[in-house]
Amino acid sequence: EANQRGAKFLCIIKLPVASRKVNTEVNTRKKTFTEVQTERLEQAERTVLIKCPSRLNEKKLLQYLSSHGKINSHFFFENRGIHALVEFSEKSSVASLQDVVGIPKAAEHHVVPFKSRLFTFTLKNPVTKAAQETPVHLSPQSHIPVNELIQKLYRADSISSQMYILLNEYQLTEENTKLRFLACSLVQDFARAYFPDSTVKPFGSSVNTFGKLGCDVDMFLDFHDTQEHATQMKKGPFEMEYQMKRLPSERLATQKILSVIGDCLDNFGPGCMSIQKILNARCPLVKFAHQPTGFQCDLSVSNSIAIKSSELLYIYGNLDSRVRALVFSLRCWARVHGLTNSVPGTWITNFSLTMMVMFFLQKRSPPIIPTLDQLKELADEKDKHIIGGNDCSFVSDLSKINPTKNTETLDELLCDFFEYFGNFDFRKNSLNLRRGKEVNKPESSPLYIWNPFEQDLNISKNVNQPQLEKFVAMARESAWILQKEDRTQRMINKEPWGLAALLTPFGKSNPNKMRRTKGLGSETIRSLLDSLKLSNASNLQKAVGK
Amino acid sequence: EANQRGAKFLCIIKLPVASRKVNTEVNTRKKTFTEVQTERLEQAERTVLIKCPSRLNEKKLLQYLSSHGKINSHFFFENRGIHALVEFSEKSSVASLQDVVGIPKAAEHHVVPFKSRLFTFTLKNPVTKAAQETPVHLSPQSHIPVNELIQKLYRADSISSQMYILLNEYQLTEENTKLRFLACSLVQDFARAYFPDSTVKPFGSSVNTFGKLGCDVDMFLDFHDTQEHATQMKKGPFEMEYQMKRLPSERLATQKILSVIGDCLDNFGPGCMSIQKILNARCPLVKFAHQPTGFQCDLSVSNSIAIKSSELLYIYGNLDSRVRALVFSLRCWARVHGLTNSVPGTWITNFSLTMMVMFFLQKRSPPIIPTLDQLKELADEKDKHIIGGNDCSFVSDLSKINPTKNTETLDELLCDFFEYFGNFDFRKNSLNLRRGKEVNKPESSPLYIWNPFEQDLNISKNVNQPQLEKFVAMARESAWILQKEDRTQRMINKEPWGLAALLTPFGKSNPNKMRRTKGLGSETIRSLLDSLKLSNASNLQKAVGK
Repeated sequence: EANQRGAKFLCIIKLPVASRKVNTEVNTRKKTFTEVQTERLEQAERTVLIKCPSRLNEKKLLQYLSSHGKINSHFFFENRGIHALVEFSEKSSVASLQDVVGIPKAAEHHVVPFKSRLFTFTLKNPVTKAAQETPVHLSPQSHIPVNELIQKLYRADSISSQMYILLNEYQLTEENTKLRFLACSLVQDFARAYFPDSTVKPFGSSVNTFGKLGCDVDMFLDFHDTQEHATQMKKGPFEMEYQMKRLPSERLATQKILSVIGDCLDNFGPGCMSIQKILNARCPLVKFAHQPTGFQCDLSVSNSIAIKSSELLYIYGNLDSRVRALVFSLRCWARVHGLTNSVPGTWITNFSLTMMVMFFLQKRSPPIIPTLDQLKELADEKDKHIIGGNDCSFVSDLSKINPTKNTETLDELLCDFFEYFGNFDFRKNSLNLRRGKEVNKPESSPLYIWNPFEQDLNISKNVNQPQLEKFVAMARESAWILQKEDRTQRMINKEPWGLAALLTPFGKSNPNKMRRTKGLGSETIRSLLDSLKLSNASNLQKAVGK
Repeated sequence: EANQRGAKFLCIIKLPVASRKVNTEVNTRKKTFTEVQTERLEQAERTVLIKCPSRLNEKKLLQYLSSHGKINSHFFFENRGIHALVEFSEKSSVASLQDVVGIPKAAEHHVVPFKSRLFTFTLKNPVTKAAQETPVHLSPQSHIPVNELIQKLYRADSISSQMYILLNEYQLTEENTKLRFLACSLVQDFARAYFPDSTVKPFGSSVNTFGKLGCDVDMFLDFHDTQEHATQMKKGPFEMEYQMKRLPSERLATQKILSVIGDCLDNFGPGCMSIQKILNARCPLVKFAHQPTGFQCDLSVSNSIAIKSSELLYIYGNLDSRVRALVFSLRCWARVHGLTNSVPGTWITNFSLTMMVMFFLQKRSPPIIPTLDQLKELADEKDKHIIGGNDCSFVSDLSKINPTKNTETLDELLCDFFEYFGNFDFRKNSLNLRRGKEVNKPESSPLYIWNPFEQDLNISKNVNQPQLEKFVAMARESAWILQKEDRTQRMINKEPWGLAALLTPFGKSNPNKMRRTKGLGSETIRSLLDSLKLSNASNLQKAVGK
């Protein structure tokens, strides 16, 4: 039922990942996280990226490329010029194309002759051909600005509708997801040059169904397969081993490998810019801008728990359409009000905020999503994963999880989220998603959210008292707005209403865009809010543990 | 005729490279430099290096390896333990072997899992099996020390014989040559990871027939094939080019590529130690010690003129057996007397000294080797090479060059070499190997030897006046020793004679090894030499240009 509420929006949402129909056999059920990852990685290996002239004859380009094999899909996008992503049906087509692609002639001796899957397509005779060329359809690779979004939200018929509009505008598109996997696959080409069994996989927001257009691509280098090879075979009286560089610690090996791959990207990788090696971090990584795809990338080495977190969110995001709509709305809300930030600090992270929403959804009655312990009970033998002594097992098959009986609207859920955390006893309690329960805080961090897989760790350890207080205050203010607002009056006043009101910085409504009228104007609201804050001040301080 | 003089020594000399019989078709003529290079490089790609226990059952190892394919050749050598170089008949055998070789188990997570062609072979049950294991025959990879050589020379029957003994002890063996090409091939694996069309080839002493056991391996990275690809194809109205890192100069591209490959060797290459990047040199290079093969290596980027110099020497070295015997003897002589040095400086280089010998041999009557202009006249269309505006064409087919009519013995040639350069007018004249003539010096460098391919350059520009004077003085002293010495008397006195006398530091005969007797002892010789030097002092100063 809950799914039906979102149904009319679902039809216009390009669902990334799980809803795509690829073959009829698995069409009856949603794919597992691993199936989606494997399929997308394999697709990306058959994909090339071509820089095109601003006007071109799409048909002729495709005709030309088709001479190297069947094309499965393609799209165009703008990123310092027009680019085409082209997915062939067979990997061999890429090699066939590469065989006839030339090395830039203009400065033949001044290029690094690394042959990637990034090409430039030009017309030999641009003038005479221009007549046949037409602009191509461009797939957007970034979301609209918040002020434009607010305009769109104005015309919706409910807060639920507004939340689905936001989701639709901000979520990753099918095209953007392909581009992310391609970026990983191109980095994988670098890693496989030396480690043919390695894989570069995206994790986090690119794959957990909660990614926003424009978010960074987190990727990791996986040697898993290599290590499995090591344990195989060895019969007879002999043993033959590779001579290999030995290092005193795995961390040092990771640092050296990342460092060299970083140098390779820097020196050989077309469009790999601003390489930063952050090798002394807890999790060593290489940051770089990948200009051809337009992504900011973070490359680290396989972190099994991070993948499990991605998979867990993938499952929650796929269980019920309200989950993602609520998370996207709340992330946008938190960002507008400065509760989250793109740089690390004492702010609540997007991951922590998402986990707060998950916890809230576990606590509904009836619950909208199951607890992690419940997901673990549904796990079968192949779902068993013990990582570093932690049991990270949970069901991977979505069809084994019963749909929720909960029928609350997103309007209700949004308002209740603010109320729930506006009144949460952060001083005493922590959020435990494994059990779906508030439990006593094991230590004094202002905000304590149990790491679902490493139960001794607090994923929101970075959050300080002032940031938590700000969050609680904003939640209360938002709950108040939603409860008190007169939608009809606001629409008459041409003021933002519902979600749009929450996405406008409080006390900063824009007089140019939204003409003020008499009645319950924003200044009136602000003074009311101020009085609310005053009256609640002692309560708030108690709640956040002062 | 000249060849016949050396014939009895040739039978015991393992001729590297050109004399090997590989197939009957080309057996009738000596192979060209390029044919030899191509064949050896291809062999090296089918070759693996295996670290073995100190005692092993050779038969069982070969039996085990044969399960992956036919073995063409193998040998064992000592280098921090026993190693086996094994050349398979097919390249696919290497891949087949690699598939079953394990990653070191002991510290599984602390290795860099780069899979090379370097393996370690161990017995699972070393104690029980030990009975079956026997020591294997080891091929020497270094030459005997000079004092041991001098003992061997004592028993020879002529100076010619002594010179062939020296050649036989010092020249590269078939096995050592294979090991050198393997070292290049292993570095090539690193380069091909990113540049699949590239080749790493040895040049200089490893391939010019004048290399001494233990000399460094000079290798270069060749992108030649890559660039040829670039010019191919391109039809239809479109053009497709690779996106590639562009750099303002070829030099910068070279530096970046060498730098990254240096890092890869350093961090991933088993046994690649002491990597030094010398990127700001005129010819940027990376130096490293390759422990598995035991070589000190210099990796640079393709230098066509250096290859042509190697080929020219290869031709001269193959034309007449006296050429190499004379060069090896004179290099050893120069080294003993401090005229050459392994570190760069104002000393005469081995290359310059070799060119002086070539010039001397061009000047004999009749000449023993042709001039470069004569070799150019014999060149056909495929031998044409213009490099950077310089005509580097010369004949590649050895059979086109007529054998010399000169029948002088090496005894005569050695003595005449000292006399010729002892009296050469270095003040006025330079050595021009292209024309085989002394010509007026174009500038005032103490020693001027025309670069055979870049005629404006002096290959011995580094040599200063004192070093040249020392060379001339030593040449005169050596001529005097050879002319004056009484071999029978010296043999009775158990003193070094002939070449051995020349290889004993003058005035430093060793009383422990060579007991002094009355008669023309070393001290008498020294005083005679001193008087000679005095009487010749003004003449010497005039000759060297003071």
